[in-house]
Amino acid sequence: MMMSPKISDSQREKRKQQILDAAKRVFSEKGYGAATLKDIIEETGMSRGWIYLYFQTKEEIFEALLDHQDAEHEQYIEELLETSASIWDVITTLYSQQQDELLKPPRGGMLPAFYEYFLIGWRDSERSELLLQRYEEGIVRFAALLQKGVDQGEFSPAMSVSDISKLAASFQEGILTHTITVGPETANTQMQQEALIQYLHRLLHS
Amino acid sequence: MMMSPKISDSQREKRKQQILDAAKRVFSEKGYGAATLKDIIEETGMSRGWIYLYFQTKEEIFEALLDHQDAEHEQYIEELLETSASIWDVITTLYSQQQDELLKPPRGGMLPAFYEYFLIGWRDSERSELLLQRYEEGIVRFAALLQKGVDQGEFSPAMSVSDISKLAASFQEGILTHTITVGPETANTQMQQEALIQYLHRLLHS
Repeated sequence: MMMSPKISDSQREKRKQQILDAAKRVFSEKGYGAATLKDIIEETGMSRGWIYLYFQTKEEIFEALLDHQDAEHEQYIEELLETSASIWDVITTLYSQQQDELLKPPRGGMLPAFYEYFLIGWRDSERSELLLQRYEEGIVRFAALLQKGVDQGEFSPAMSVSDISKLAASFQEGILTHTITVGPETANTQMQQEALIQYLHRLLHS
Repeated sequence: MMMSPKISDSQREKRKQQILDAAKRVFSEKGYGAATLKDIIEETGMSRGWIYLYFQTKEEIFEALLDHQDAEHEQYIEELLETSASIWDVITTLYSQQQDELLKPPRGGMLPAFYEYFLIGWRDSERSELLLQRYEEGIVRFAALLQKGVDQGEFSPAMSVSDISKLAASFQEGILTHTITVGPETANTQMQQEALIQYLHRLLHS
């Protein structure tokens, strides 16, 4: 007990956040495979010992970062729901925020690292289990938003909100991967994003 | 001259084809990163020396396989154009053939290896150049097919055929990646593929 540094919960949280911020920069810059725990430690400017109080491996940091981003995303949706005039406004704001993220250098932010992590780990059963869980959560989260619009009389879709959520997720995923791999000019990302929003609008108003 | 085995051009082609077939099985089974040249050599049942007459590296074999598949795809489109009643029939046949390929075990065939090759190699400038070239060729090839339908009075799109080609490519890509990563039941691939075809139909008839 005497050996370990005594810090308050808020200090603990702050340090953890600093590690995740540093890791995000490293993964955005190098991708997943090429990034090392050493890179992340150096980026934090903290000592190895401090980091090991929180995380043991690069993988642990990466997964904590995903959880953290999900929590931020959930909170962001909650805030948008409180301040937006309609569910449709929430949706278009979410898409435009995602597009800003995508076009911000280094190209795609964390996304290439994300694809690397799961595609390479695709045959690893734990990782593929995590990916399946993340997919299902994402589909359910967006479907719940659509359902709210249905309940409020804003949307009148001919398909289930779950199927619409899956279609929007696929289309968006393809736009993301093409933008990352060939760039926003060649992929004509702006046009594609607008077409996706129009398509979604049509699915929601049958 | 005396040292090298004398074989005819057709024998040469046949051997090369055997190597590519073996490589396809190995890449479909193991992905790109985990597959080795040794795996491919063993799968062919030929001696190392024979293989080295054709290919020096795993990367060379992989790229030859992509070229070969492109040539096959081009030829397939040509055949469909001769036997189909309309361009729309050609398109729906292409999609349904791609879906069959996708649902065939091991899940996604060569696709996971393909994603691995380009996503991991994304920061490698030669590979990203090759990917850009492949993207552009694919977009142009499909746009040319759509243009043929426009010229024949079959389609009347409000957007450029190039933009429609990019939209269809993104949507299809997203369906492919989601199917590979979470499986056709969870992704509801059948429903998504039908929705993509309906969407494309709508884009072509404004």
